[in-house]
Amino acid sequence: MGLVASGSNQTLEGVPAVTNRGASPRLPEPALYYFGDGDNGDRNRFPVPNPREVLGGKGAGLAEMSRLGIPVPPGFTITTAVCGFYYRERSRYPGPLRAAVDEALAFLERKCARSFGDPNRPLLVSVRSGAPVSMPGMMDTVLNVGLSARTLSGLAAGAEGRRFALDCYRRLIEMYGDVVAGVDRARFTSALDAAKRGAQVTRDQDLSAPQLEAIIEQYLSAYRAATGAEFPQDARAQLWGAIDAVFASWMSPRAVTYRRIHGIPNDLGTAVNVQSMVFGNLGDDSATGVCFTRDPATGEDSIFGEFLPNAQGEDLVAGIRTPQPLTRSEANGAHSFEAIFPDCHRQLLDVRGRLERHFGDMQDLEFTVEKGKLYLLQTRRGKRTGMAAIRIACEMVADGIVDPPRAVLQVDPQTLTQVLAPAFGQAELEAARAERLAAGLPASPGAASGAVALSADRAVALRDTGATSVILVRHETSPEDIAGMEAAAGIVTARGGKTSHAAVVARGMGKPCVVGCEALQIDEEARVVRCGSATIAEGDPISIDGTTGEVFPKILPVRAPEILQVLDGERAPEASPTYGFFARFMAWADAERRLRVWANADTPEDAHLARQLGAEGIGLCRTEHMFFGKERILAFRRMILAAGENERREALAELLLYQRRDFLGIFEAMDGLPVTIRLLDPPLHEFLPHGADEIRRFAEEARLPERDVAARVEATREENPMLGLRGCRLGLAHPGIYGMQIRAILEAAIEARQGGVRALPEIMIPLTALDTEIDELRAQLTRTMEEVCAERDVDPSAVEFRFGTMIEIPRAALIAGKLAARLDFFSFGTNDLTQMTLGLSRDDTARLIVDYVERGLLPHDPFSSLDQEGVGELMQIAVERGRHANPKLKIGICGEHGGDPRSVEFCHRIGFDYVSCSPYRVPVARLAAAQAALREKRAAGGDSEPIAV
Amino acid sequence: MGLVASGSNQTLEGVPAVTNRGASPRLPEPALYYFGDGDNGDRNRFPVPNPREVLGGKGAGLAEMSRLGIPVPPGFTITTAVCGFYYRERSRYPGPLRAAVDEALAFLERKCARSFGDPNRPLLVSVRSGAPVSMPGMMDTVLNVGLSARTLSGLAAGAEGRRFALDCYRRLIEMYGDVVAGVDRARFTSALDAAKRGAQVTRDQDLSAPQLEAIIEQYLSAYRAATGAEFPQDARAQLWGAIDAVFASWMSPRAVTYRRIHGIPNDLGTAVNVQSMVFGNLGDDSATGVCFTRDPATGEDSIFGEFLPNAQGEDLVAGIRTPQPLTRSEANGAHSFEAIFPDCHRQLLDVRGRLERHFGDMQDLEFTVEKGKLYLLQTRRGKRTGMAAIRIACEMVADGIVDPPRAVLQVDPQTLTQVLAPAFGQAELEAARAERLAAGLPASPGAASGAVALSADRAVALRDTGATSVILVRHETSPEDIAGMEAAAGIVTARGGKTSHAAVVARGMGKPCVVGCEALQIDEEARVVRCGSATIAEGDPISIDGTTGEVFPKILPVRAPEILQVLDGERAPEASPTYGFFARFMAWADAERRLRVWANADTPEDAHLARQLGAEGIGLCRTEHMFFGKERILAFRRMILAAGENERREALAELLLYQRRDFLGIFEAMDGLPVTIRLLDPPLHEFLPHGADEIRRFAEEARLPERDVAARVEATREENPMLGLRGCRLGLAHPGIYGMQIRAILEAAIEARQGGVRALPEIMIPLTALDTEIDELRAQLTRTMEEVCAERDVDPSAVEFRFGTMIEIPRAALIAGKLAARLDFFSFGTNDLTQMTLGLSRDDTARLIVDYVERGLLPHDPFSSLDQEGVGELMQIAVERGRHANPKLKIGICGEHGGDPRSVEFCHRIGFDYVSCSPYRVPVARLAAAQAALREKRAAGGDSEPIAV
Repeated sequence: MGLVASGSNQTLEGVPAVTNRGASPRLPEPALYYFGDGDNGDRNRFPVPNPREVLGGKGAGLAEMSRLGIPVPPGFTITTAVCGFYYRERSRYPGPLRAAVDEALAFLERKCARSFGDPNRPLLVSVRSGAPVSMPGMMDTVLNVGLSARTLSGLAAGAEGRRFALDCYRRLIEMYGDVVAGVDRARFTSALDAAKRGAQVTRDQDLSAPQLEAIIEQYLSAYRAATGAEFPQDARAQLWGAIDAVFASWMSPRAVTYRRIHGIPNDLGTAVNVQSMVFGNLGDDSATGVCFTRDPATGEDSIFGEFLPNAQGEDLVAGIRTPQPLTRSEANGAHSFEAIFPDCHRQLLDVRGRLERHFGDMQDLEFTVEKGKLYLLQTRRGKRTGMAAIRIACEMVADGIVDPPRAVLQVDPQTLTQVLAPAFGQAELEAARAERLAAGLPASPGAASGAVALSADRAVALRDTGATSVILVRHETSPEDIAGMEAAAGIVTARGGKTSHAAVVARGMGKPCVVGCEALQIDEEARVVRCGSATIAEGDPISIDGTTGEVFPKILPVRAPEILQVLDGERAPEASPTYGFFARFMAWADAERRLRVWANADTPEDAHLARQLGAEGIGLCRTEHMFFGKERILAFRRMILAAGENERREALAELLLYQRRDFLGIFEAMDGLPVTIRLLDPPLHEFLPHGADEIRRFAEEARLPERDVAARVEATREENPMLGLRGCRLGLAHPGIYGMQIRAILEAAIEARQGGVRALPEIMIPLTALDTEIDELRAQLTRTMEEVCAERDVDPSAVEFRFGTMIEIPRAALIAGKLAARLDFFSFGTNDLTQMTLGLSRDDTARLIVDYVERGLLPHDPFSSLDQEGVGELMQIAVERGRHANPKLKIGICGEHGGDPRSVEFCHRIGFDYVSCSPYRVPVARLAAAQAALREKRAAGGDSEPIAV
Repeated sequence: MGLVASGSNQTLEGVPAVTNRGASPRLPEPALYYFGDGDNGDRNRFPVPNPREVLGGKGAGLAEMSRLGIPVPPGFTITTAVCGFYYRERSRYPGPLRAAVDEALAFLERKCARSFGDPNRPLLVSVRSGAPVSMPGMMDTVLNVGLSARTLSGLAAGAEGRRFALDCYRRLIEMYGDVVAGVDRARFTSALDAAKRGAQVTRDQDLSAPQLEAIIEQYLSAYRAATGAEFPQDARAQLWGAIDAVFASWMSPRAVTYRRIHGIPNDLGTAVNVQSMVFGNLGDDSATGVCFTRDPATGEDSIFGEFLPNAQGEDLVAGIRTPQPLTRSEANGAHSFEAIFPDCHRQLLDVRGRLERHFGDMQDLEFTVEKGKLYLLQTRRGKRTGMAAIRIACEMVADGIVDPPRAVLQVDPQTLTQVLAPAFGQAELEAARAERLAAGLPASPGAASGAVALSADRAVALRDTGATSVILVRHETSPEDIAGMEAAAGIVTARGGKTSHAAVVARGMGKPCVVGCEALQIDEEARVVRCGSATIAEGDPISIDGTTGEVFPKILPVRAPEILQVLDGERAPEASPTYGFFARFMAWADAERRLRVWANADTPEDAHLARQLGAEGIGLCRTEHMFFGKERILAFRRMILAAGENERREALAELLLYQRRDFLGIFEAMDGLPVTIRLLDPPLHEFLPHGADEIRRFAEEARLPERDVAARVEATREENPMLGLRGCRLGLAHPGIYGMQIRAILEAAIEARQGGVRALPEIMIPLTALDTEIDELRAQLTRTMEEVCAERDVDPSAVEFRFGTMIEIPRAALIAGKLAARLDFFSFGTNDLTQMTLGLSRDDTARLIVDYVERGLLPHDPFSSLDQEGVGELMQIAVERGRHANPKLKIGICGEHGGDPRSVEFCHRIGFDYVSCSPYRVPVARLAAAQAALREKRAAGGDSEPIAV
């Protein structure tokens, strides 16, 4: 960004520079644009080519509304280009700006029939910042600019009355003092609070005019004390003070940090919006309101919002008075906006239709009624739930408001998970909050209730009673807990972050999960969980909300998501409008995307689910989970701990039977689609018994000397298991394991074929760092292939399979050319690749990452969304070198990032063939892939982003 | 190498291809070169431009000797180009080759007055491979080619006798059967052994002619059984069989693997040497011998070797007869070569002088005397000890044989460590071997003896008695053992590899160390070490040899290295010829190098030693070791575990005093030279007490609740500490620690200045992954700088310092441009960078790495010598981007690799400013840097490598 000087001991931090808008200090003309003039005169040269870039988001919205003839209080927007000039020229303005502002004020005065600074009919304005992207850390708003001791009586002389005018003045001094002059806001609020205590009132509006006058005196002296200057009494001085403050706030540390971590260029600049004030609190014929053009929770095609008569915008936010509904219903009688302001309501419905058609999206509006006249103050894209999003998209297409591609771009992929997650009823949830037990990190969305189980065994046993669903509560989970996690309806852990074992597995299983719930103290001996003064015994009921991270000490009722009911055949598609919207919307998305979407699935059940949710292959089948059944783990341990070759061979033969059956089931579920099977990856230690008891029990079962077992367990202990004997290193150190797995895959594929199923295995080597590792394993594969085909009298050419590797070690990315020449596919294991590229263990640094993100050191958790600068560059290197060496190379991703929309877009951009994610995220990835393709197409066609104000 | 087809399931492994010698199948002429013709006729067109490349190492040596007029049995060398042709044309020879070989045989027949295949006076030849680089895995030698049932009597009819001829024939069948026809050698040796048992003799030469005849019959039928063919009786068939075998062995799996892991191109090819046989066993006027042209142990300028009269070369190797000395002395009376063969001895001395002058290096020779005539059979570069190497270099320069740059290139930098290591007397060592206790991995060279200590505390206590030196014996070591390691004369660990903590620290301290000594079972409770049936109690004497990895259960006498005695002022330089050679040699090296050599040193003592050994700065001062004194660790733990801010501040204030004193001492030792101080790096866990006892003791001392301490210790536990909360993450999470360290550095620098010492601190941030980390820490540095300067009334510009980071995380290398723009220097932490780039923990994978190297999966331990392909590419990326962003950026390396010659050369090549290594390796790095510069100069000047046959 050019903010840091290259070279030695000096950085120029804090010295702003807006440099790449051309070297000349000349100001692009015009310096400001008018809005709300209603006659589209020559001063209002809108539309400009990039309204958001020139006018900022807020200004562009106002200008668009003005252009559409929607009533907007008149005003003008000083362009972002002036901000650039201001910084280039070290806080100077272009010469002609003052004249242009004066001219614009004159225009406002004419429009409002008031005069800026006039004691009789003073014009008041608001001053607001508005950058091209929404951005915290900048000056927000100063209202009532133009009010002073001199103009006070002019305002009071209107219909408004003195009390109203005094309150406006008080607010001006407070806002201006705070955001323009940097006076600690507490200096004002403490004076106000003292006055209210003195007057024995609790609400601001109950203060009388004399009381307000006294408060204003205190405010003015507080201002004087803090700044050493008088509060400016000149309207223009106030205005320029506020404009200065907006521009200065562009380079405030918070804003700079925010831009740095979001990769927003410093030279974008902010605009300044100056707008004549309208008041919703001028009596019963005035009001203020907010609304969504459609229901943001359900998507229903009707206006949704609330208002307060005789009130100001901030009163709505403060929540002191109960807002009233917009639309008339039987219940609300005469209280609705429709009933009280029928004309304005009609007008609002008209505005709604025009704005939706214009922006092609649901809008979030702010409006004011001043003495019976409706004014729109803001329009912007409305936030919505996933359910609402797909319904709105479908209905807007049906109504011809948008075409399907535009509709596809309208929905935030992340929100699709909500459509598939079970949830508590909203009312029950809110009622339960008073008795909430604890809150952790929301790791996997959805809701679940059940009896507490403190161990995997207990979870299985409880589930097997059939009497209750189960919530597994653990300190943290490990692969040995898989059976328990499978048995549970939801999982809570006291430690770990959003990418901990529990979180990853739970998301993979589509189960609600709360992690890092540190308030929970698990006493495994006493079989209780303590939390503050509460104690929950094993077997007691709890509920968890994986969407909010909350835990409740009781059963809350859960609703099952409709779409899954339909997919599971429990409900007819016709009976579910939700399913109808979902299916229609996803078909539009699928028509646009180039990226294939595969799923990570370890069992036939998961594979089946993934396919239902649209997966076009399995990108990651983890074979290690298959070893954790009770008999299997015994055989696996016997294999590892075998004293002699014979015993080892026997154990391997037993495991072969299990694995072959597993693979056959998955091949059947994915008939005709590729199934990527990763050979054993985790360190052996994870499979061995731990603790004296487990070791003794296992030694007895396996008839091995307890001391030997203990010694072997100790010998496999590693300081940094993540960087130790795992992945293909394990396969090379113990060739029997991979040999057995390869054989099981090939035999299952042959059996599947013989049963009429088209098995397409893709054998994947984990943790490759060297081309020599691949050579050695390929030779093993070839040998096994020949053996199996000879034994079964099958022609090797009849067995379709591919051979590839995960790219999850930085070195593998660097030598991708060599690897690609030996392989059919790459699959990026971005969890490990992120760990190693950043030197950051996801098990150990959850808290550190949260801290880094909060401090702006990291833009986001790199385990949630790809670190495109670091990890992403290695991926690009690998793609380029891999494709150069082997143009047919198939490239995918199977890390957690495969379900993250930003990461999916990145994968699309650098030319991946597919992304693979947990089954429940398949729709998210399908949509993200479609959006990536659409955005690419638009960029190639020179289209700018859709106007999403 | 083009051996692997790009694309799908097929690799072309095993199909040799020699492709880049031009596309034409035409053979470069001539296909063979003669040697030993003595008249330098037109057939012998030697010298060719690149003798080693065309003729292989052995052939080039023979050709050079022949050209110099040194007596060599005549023969010819088929060039490496024929090998290329052979593979290009799928095992066919160029048409004219047979005629050329026939012509060459005719030449041999003329020279030897014998005929190939002639029953009366048969010519016998040897056939040997000889590649441009020495390479195991290829066919070695077939002797006596040309011998058959038909020619046997012709050889017997000479002076040699029938028994001799039969023995030659037996050897031919065995060698030919083994290396040419692929017959299992055991088939022959078992027949021979049976015959010897039958004849009741133990030595081959005691078998009679009839017995040999019977054995030959058995050999021939064994050959027939194994191959299904008769042993070839035609001389030319034998010759071509042997030539085929040499060429085929070029692509043998072992040879291919060897080339792959050493990066030797497959298209180099091997030559074939066909040479007429001479026999050293034709009576008392015949002999065989080997010699070095100088003493390879001491470098003394006299011929050094041994011989056997009436014997063959293999008898010397077999060691059945005692070899006799070459040079006459009082002791050896009439046994010496000089006494028995005075003419040949004179001739040998003459040969020695000519070869040394010609090759500019000490040579290793093989010779045979046949009936009073001396023949040289081989000359190659002689291996030597470090001491010998520098003496030879100096004396060859003095004698005008080589110039200093050539002498600098002659010495293997690795061997310099021998010059600085204490060692056991060779005789005592050999005598002690019978009672050797165990052997592990030689991790740090040198020898030490002392009393066994099983804990750091005990080591300190034992040392403090002053009664004995101490050998610390541990399962493995951790930073808490530092004091004990410092107190010990040597270290042994039962676990760990050559880059384990013990190994790294011991090398840093220059102390002998044996690691991975798995036979040792340490019983800390009983305070004994068990090994097999032996038991060593704490306090018992042992000796360890870090050069061989051996451990002895007694005290062996140690010699202190002369050079350090001189450097320490204990001996006058004039009194040490060794020091004289060392100093002279290192001065020549220093004159050539461009790279600076710095040292890793944590104490003033180490800094002083490093400077004595030629270090030009400190590249890594690890501050963590400074916290391990008894009082310091207490303060440090109090700081970490502090309940409140006040307590923490008190503890930090105490630590500040210690650190300031430490830094001041190092600045004084390095007056005028840069000192790079790394801020705290290891995870906090390493500093905390472990185990219930330690926790209780610490809690008492620090007056903290035991439970709190235990909980905090548990809370700092990490799954993968290498990737956890350490390095600058720690500094950012606990700003007080880095704040204190920065303050201590600046205050010490100011105090040093005031005391007239020029302190040049370079503050180094460890484990940087993000540019934002640097921004935050730089701001902290600036604040502290301003505070300190204000407090001490010092002008900030008077404090010279630099601010930089380690590049040890892959991401840091990728964003090097951003980092460089903010910093003054980079120092590559290649230990961590290797761990993360390869995903390989050096603590956990020592055995795996050994296994990988043995299997050819890795060319070498990447922790010993840089992985230039993977880690090296990241380093190059970082250098390019760093220098581009900041041309003044200083770049160095402070990982273990800084003392590895190959890595030093790599650092030179990619443009580093300095390498930093442990003090004792500073001379190694100085020499390696000089050689890198010289080789670069030669390559730039178009010079080929010096001929080092």
